Amino acid sequence: MQKDKPILEVCFSPALLHLFDLKNTIVVVIDIFRATTTICVAIANGAHKIYPFLEVDDCLDFKAKHPHVISAGERDGKIIDGMDRGNSPSDYPTSFIQQKEIALTTTNGTKVLHMSSDAEQIIIGSFVNLQTVIDYLKSQNKKVLLACAAWKDKVNMEDTLFAGAVVNALQDDFEVLCDSAKMSQQLWKTTNNGAQLYEILKESSHYRRLSRFGAQNDLKICTTLNSHPSLPIFTKASYLVDKKTENTI
Amino acid sequence: MQKDKPILEVCFSPALLHLFDLKNTIVVVIDIFRATTTICVAIANGAHKIYPFLEVDDCLDFKAKHPHVISAGERDGKIIDGMDRGNSPSDYPTSFIQQKEIALTTTNGTKVLHMSSDAEQIIIGSFVNLQTVIDYLKSQNKKVLLACAAWKDKVNMEDTLFAGAVVNALQDDFEVLCDSAKMSQQLWKTTNNGAQLYEILKESSHYRRLSRFGAQNDLKICTTLNSHPSLPIFTKASYLVDKKTENTI
Repeated sequence: MQKDKPILEVCFSPALLHLFDLKNTIVVVIDIFRATTTICVAIANGAHKIYPFLEVDDCLDFKAKHPHVISAGERDGKIIDGMDRGNSPSDYPTSFIQQKEIALTTTNGTKVLHMSSDAEQIIIGSFVNLQTVIDYLKSQNKKVLLACAAWKDKVNMEDTLFAGAVVNALQDDFEVLCDSAKMSQQLWKTTNNGAQLYEILKESSHYRRLSRFGAQNDLKICTTLNSHPSLPIFTKASYLVDKKTENTI
Repeated sequence: MQKDKPILEVCFSPALLHLFDLKNTIVVVIDIFRATTTICVAIANGAHKIYPFLEVDDCLDFKAKHPHVISAGERDGKIIDGMDRGNSPSDYPTSFIQQKEIALTTTNGTKVLHMSSDAEQIIIGSFVNLQTVIDYLKSQNKKVLLACAAWKDKVNMEDTLFAGAVVNALQDDFEVLCDSAKMSQQLWKTTNNGAQLYEILKESSHYRRLSRFGAQNDLKICTTLNSHPSLPIFTKASYLVDKKTENTI
C-alpha cells in the first residue's frame, strides 16, 4: 500500500500561525525582504552562528556580554542605532563575516522564528537558497508549514511568492490541500518560474517602503534564485547554523 | 488639482481585520460559500429584512419572540437543529421568501459583519451581485475594505477571488497599494474573467467540505455572476435590507 504523503501548508501571516498545528512539523520561516535572505547569505558566506532576538535590548545586551559578536538589526526597514550592521544581505560579504557570529533582530522575521517553537525543526527559506530548501524538504518526508513573516502581520507578495515556488516544486511529493498553498502556487506561476520575480516585486508594498531607505540593490539580491545555497536551521540552543554542520547542534 | 483617489484594501481573514482602520470606510463582507451569496439571493428574491446573529442561541431566542421570522443557520456547513432553513441560497426562492424576515447565523459570514461595526457602511458582496457592488463602490468615492470571511480564520480561495474581481474592476478609480489586493487581483485574472470560476472552486477546500453535505448544487449558484443584483446593506438597527429601500434605514 502506498504511504500517505505528508501535508504541505502555507501560513500567510504570523497573526494566523495559531491556526496551524506545528507539532511534528518542519516550519520554513520566510522573510524575503530581508531577514531570511540576509540569514541565508551570511551563513553561505561563512558566518558561524546567528543568534536571532525578538527585542532590540536583548540583542544589544548579548553584544555587550559577547563583544566578538556582530550586532545587527532593523526596525521599520532602518538600521538600529548602536548596531554594527543592518539587515541588508550586502552587509555580510565573506571577507567580513567568515567564521563570525551575529546577534540579529528584525521587524518580522525573528518574530515568526520565536513563535514556531513547537515545531520539530525550523529552517530558513529565501529565494537565494530556494532549491536547497526544496531538496531538503523532499528528503525529510515530514509535514511542512511554510510560514510567511509578512509585514507587521499584513500579508505580503514576496513571502507568498516564495511559498508558491516551494509548493509548485513539491506538489507531487506532498498533500497540498489548503487554499493558501494553492493561491501561492497560482501566484508563483505568474512569475514565469521566477523570470519575472524582480519586475513583480518592484511593485510590492514592502519594496516601496524599503526603497525609501536606499535598499534598491537589496531587491536584486533578494530575488536572485539559488545564489547562496545554505540551509540555516534553528538549533535547540537557539541559534541558526548551517544544516551541513549539524553535528554542532 | 486632481483629487486623491480613495484607498481600496483587501483583508484575507477576520483574524487580520484588526490591522485595518475601518473608520470612514465601506466594508464589503464576503462569504461566498455561502452566507453572503444566500443573503444576496434572499434579498433579491424579496426578503424584507435579514437579522444576522453571531450566536445560535440568540438567533433561536429572536425566532421564539418573533414567530413570523424564518430562522436560518448553519455550523460547519450543516443546518442547525431547530432552525427553519439552512444556509443554502436554494432555500430562499421568491415563492417562499417574498416579504418575509430572516434571522440568520452562520460559521463565518455573520462574524465579520459584527466585527466591522466601526465602518461607515457595511454591504454584502458575492458573485451573484458582483456588478451591483462594483457600481455602488464606484458611485460612493470612499475608502473601501473588502473583508473576506474565510473559514474559521483560514484564508480561502473563493472569498479572495471575489475580492480580486472587485479590485480588477476598480483599479483605475481607487488607489490599490496593499499586496493582498494585488494578489487577489492576480488570482482573479487566472479565472479568465470568471469563466473558469466554477472549475477552479471545485478544487477549493471549502467546496470539498460542503460537498460532503450535498451542497454541490450550491457551487453552481454561488459562482454565477450577477444573477441576483441586490445590494444588501447593514442598517444602524442591525438588520440587512436592500439598499434600494434605504429610506427604511
